Amino acid sequence: MGTQYFVVPTSVHDSLMEAAFRHRGYTADESQAAARFCHQASLHGIRTHNGIKALHLDEHFGSKAGGCKPGAIIEKLPSKYKAVQRWNANRKLGMATAFEAMDTCMKLADEYGVGIVAVDNAFHYLWGGGYVIDVADKGYIAYTNCTAALAEVVPFGGKFPTLGTNPHSWGFPTRDVIGYPICVDWATSTVATGRIQQFAREGKQLGAGWAVDKDGVETREAAQVAALLPFGAHKGYGLSLIDELVAAFIGGSLPTIRNRWDKVPAGEKGTCAFFFQCIRPDAIACEDFACKRSQKENVKAVIADILGHGNEKSMLPGQIEAESAALSKKHGGLLFTAAEVDAFAAIAKEADVAFDSKSFKSVEV
Amino acid sequence: MGTQYFVVPTSVHDSLMEAAFRHRGYTADESQAAARFCHQASLHGIRTHNGIKALHLDEHFGSKAGGCKPGAIIEKLPSKYKAVQRWNANRKLGMATAFEAMDTCMKLADEYGVGIVAVDNAFHYLWGGGYVIDVADKGYIAYTNCTAALAEVVPFGGKFPTLGTNPHSWGFPTRDVIGYPICVDWATSTVATGRIQQFAREGKQLGAGWAVDKDGVETREAAQVAALLPFGAHKGYGLSLIDELVAAFIGGSLPTIRNRWDKVPAGEKGTCAFFFQCIRPDAIACEDFACKRSQKENVKAVIADILGHGNEKSMLPGQIEAESAALSKKHGGLLFTAAEVDAFAAIAKEADVAFDSKSFKSVEV
Repeated sequence: MGTQYFVVPTSVHDSLMEAAFRHRGYTADESQAAARFCHQASLHGIRTHNGIKALHLDEHFGSKAGGCKPGAIIEKLPSKYKAVQRWNANRKLGMATAFEAMDTCMKLADEYGVGIVAVDNAFHYLWGGGYVIDVADKGYIAYTNCTAALAEVVPFGGKFPTLGTNPHSWGFPTRDVIGYPICVDWATSTVATGRIQQFAREGKQLGAGWAVDKDGVETREAAQVAALLPFGAHKGYGLSLIDELVAAFIGGSLPTIRNRWDKVPAGEKGTCAFFFQCIRPDAIACEDFACKRSQKENVKAVIADILGHGNEKSMLPGQIEAESAALSKKHGGLLFTAAEVDAFAAIAKEADVAFDSKSFKSVEV
Repeated sequence: MGTQYFVVPTSVHDSLMEAAFRHRGYTADESQAAARFCHQASLHGIRTHNGIKALHLDEHFGSKAGGCKPGAIIEKLPSKYKAVQRWNANRKLGMATAFEAMDTCMKLADEYGVGIVAVDNAFHYLWGGGYVIDVADKGYIAYTNCTAALAEVVPFGGKFPTLGTNPHSWGFPTRDVIGYPICVDWATSTVATGRIQQFAREGKQLGAGWAVDKDGVETREAAQVAALLPFGAHKGYGLSLIDELVAAFIGGSLPTIRNRWDKVPAGEKGTCAFFFQCIRPDAIACEDFACKRSQKENVKAVIADILGHGNEKSMLPGQIEAESAALSKKHGGLLFTAAEVDAFAAIAKEADVAFDSKSFKSVEV
C-alpha cells in the first residue's frame, strides 16, 4: 500500500509556474528561472520546498511583502579580487539570482580553480540542494549557504531565537561514479517549524533536541515551543552561526528583524544574504592516486570502502533525491499528491490560466 | 577549589619542543613549526592536542611508523588555475605543511579574494582550530578540513567504522570586534575515542549518540563499543563524508587502511589529505551595511543581536580558547597539570635536554 501520486507533465508544471510568477509581476527571465527551479525541487522529491512553497514565500515575504522586487537589477560591484564577486541583488527573485550566481562561480572556477559570489539584499532561494546538485552535474564541487528568512533558532545555551535555520548545501560531481551527485544539504536546526506544527496537529510528543520553551528549557510538548534548537548542540550552533557571520561580512543585518518588515526601522535592513562557491575538481587533483586510479576511480574506490564492510544499509546523502528523480522520469512527469494538485489548481486560478486537475494519471508509489 | 597548574615559561616549552622534534630527526624549520604550533595549542587550553600528543602521534603514526618523513620536500604541482594550489607533501610534518599552506592561501587571497591549497600525502596537523585562529588574527576568513588518522566512525545506518573523526575548522577575523577570533572547530564524531576510554576507566555510562557495538546498535556500555557515531545523525555523517570526498578528489585513498601501515598493500596509500582556504573579508563586502555601519561594526551588531534578548549565557565558539589564552598570558607562561609536566620531563629525557620539573611556579585556576 503506497501513496497515491498524480503525474503532472513537466511542461504543464513549468508553464503553470511561469504563468504564476508572471502574474505576480516577475519578468519572463525571472519566471523561467522560478519554473526551472521549482521543477528541479519537485523532480528530486522535495515536497517542503516546491513551487507551492515558492509562491507562498513570495506572498508572505516576497513581492507582496516588500522582501522581493520583481524585475530588480543585480548590481555587480567592482572588485580588485579576481576570483570573488560581490553582488547587491536589490531583492531580486532568489531563484533567478542563485542560478546566475552559480553560473558566475563556474566561470570563475574555470579560470581560477575556485569562484565565489557573495550576494547581499537577497530573497529566499528555496532549496540550496537544488543549486549544488545542478552545478555538481556540470562537473564542479559546489557549496552554498544563506541566512534563512526568520530567526527561529536559539543559540546553544540561550533562550531567545536569534538565528535562522540557516542551511548549508554541498554537492559533489559523482554522477559518473555512482549515478548521481552526492548532496549534503540540511538546515542547522534539528527540525523545521513545520515539523513542530505537524506534531502539534497530530498530538504527538516531540523528539529530543528539537525545541525549547520560553525559558530556553528543552520541551517535548509542541504547545510549549517558543523556539527551535540547533542540531548537535554546540556543533550545529556553530554551523548556524557561520551563516550569520558570513552574511554579516557580506551586508546582512540583525537576524531578529530579518524579513519582519514591520519591525525594520528606517536605515536598517531585513534582507537575507547568500554565499556561493564552485571548485574545479581537477584543480585539487594532486595526481598521486593509489593503484594508478584516475580521480574518478579513486572517488569510487573511497565510496565503495565507506559503504562496504557490512555498511550496505547506509545511504549516501543525495541518494533519496536521486531515487525520486528516477521515479519521476519513469512515470514521465513530476509526482504530486492530491492536496498538492489542488494547490496547483488554486495557483492556476490566481494566475488565470487553464489547469485541468482531472487530466493527470495517478500512480501508487 | 580549582585545578593546580604549573606555569611553564613559553621559552622553556618552545625550546623543549624544538629539541624533541630535532631529536626525532626533523629539520630546524620543521621543529620550529612544531614548537610554534604546540605553543599555540597549549596557549589556547587545548589539552588533548598539545606537544605531548604531537610527539605521541609522531611515535605511533609518524617518523617512527613511516607516516611522516623528517625533512620531506613539498612538491608544488603546476596548475593552470591561479587561485588554487595542489601540493604533494610527501609526508612532511603536518604542522610545518599546514602553516606554509595557510601562508600561501593568504597570499592567493590577497590577489584573488580567495585562496585554496589542497595537500596530498599529508601527516596529522594536530588541531585545525590553531591554524584558523592564527589566520583569522591576520584578517582572513579561514577554513580547513582533513581526513583524521584512523577510520573510527560508522556511517549513519552502518555498523563498521569507515570514516575518520574528520574535523572541520572555521575562523573569523573578529578580534577587533569582540576581542578574539570566532573559531568553529570540532570533530564530526559525537566524542573522541579518548572520551570512551576515559568513561571505561571511570566505569561510567556513555552518553546518547556516542557509539555503537559490533552490530551497529547504539550502546551506552564502554566495554561494548566497536565504533563511534557521527554527531547529529545523518547531518554529522554528511560532514564527515565531505572530508573523505574532498580527500578522495585530492588523492586520499581507502579510509579503512589509512595510517594502518601494516594493512596498506603495495601500490596503495595510507596518508591523509588536507584542504585549506582563506577568503579576504573585504572581497565579500557588498558595501550596503545598514545604518552606515562599517563591515566590522556590522559584524559587531549582528553578534550583539545573537547574544542579546536574554541569550547572555550563550557563548561564542572560540570564547573558551580565548579565555585560556588570556589566563596563560596573565600568569606569564603556558599552563600544564602535574601529569603533563611529568610527560614533558620524559620528553626532555628522550631528547637529552635539561628540564627542571621543580622550577615552575604553580597556580590554582
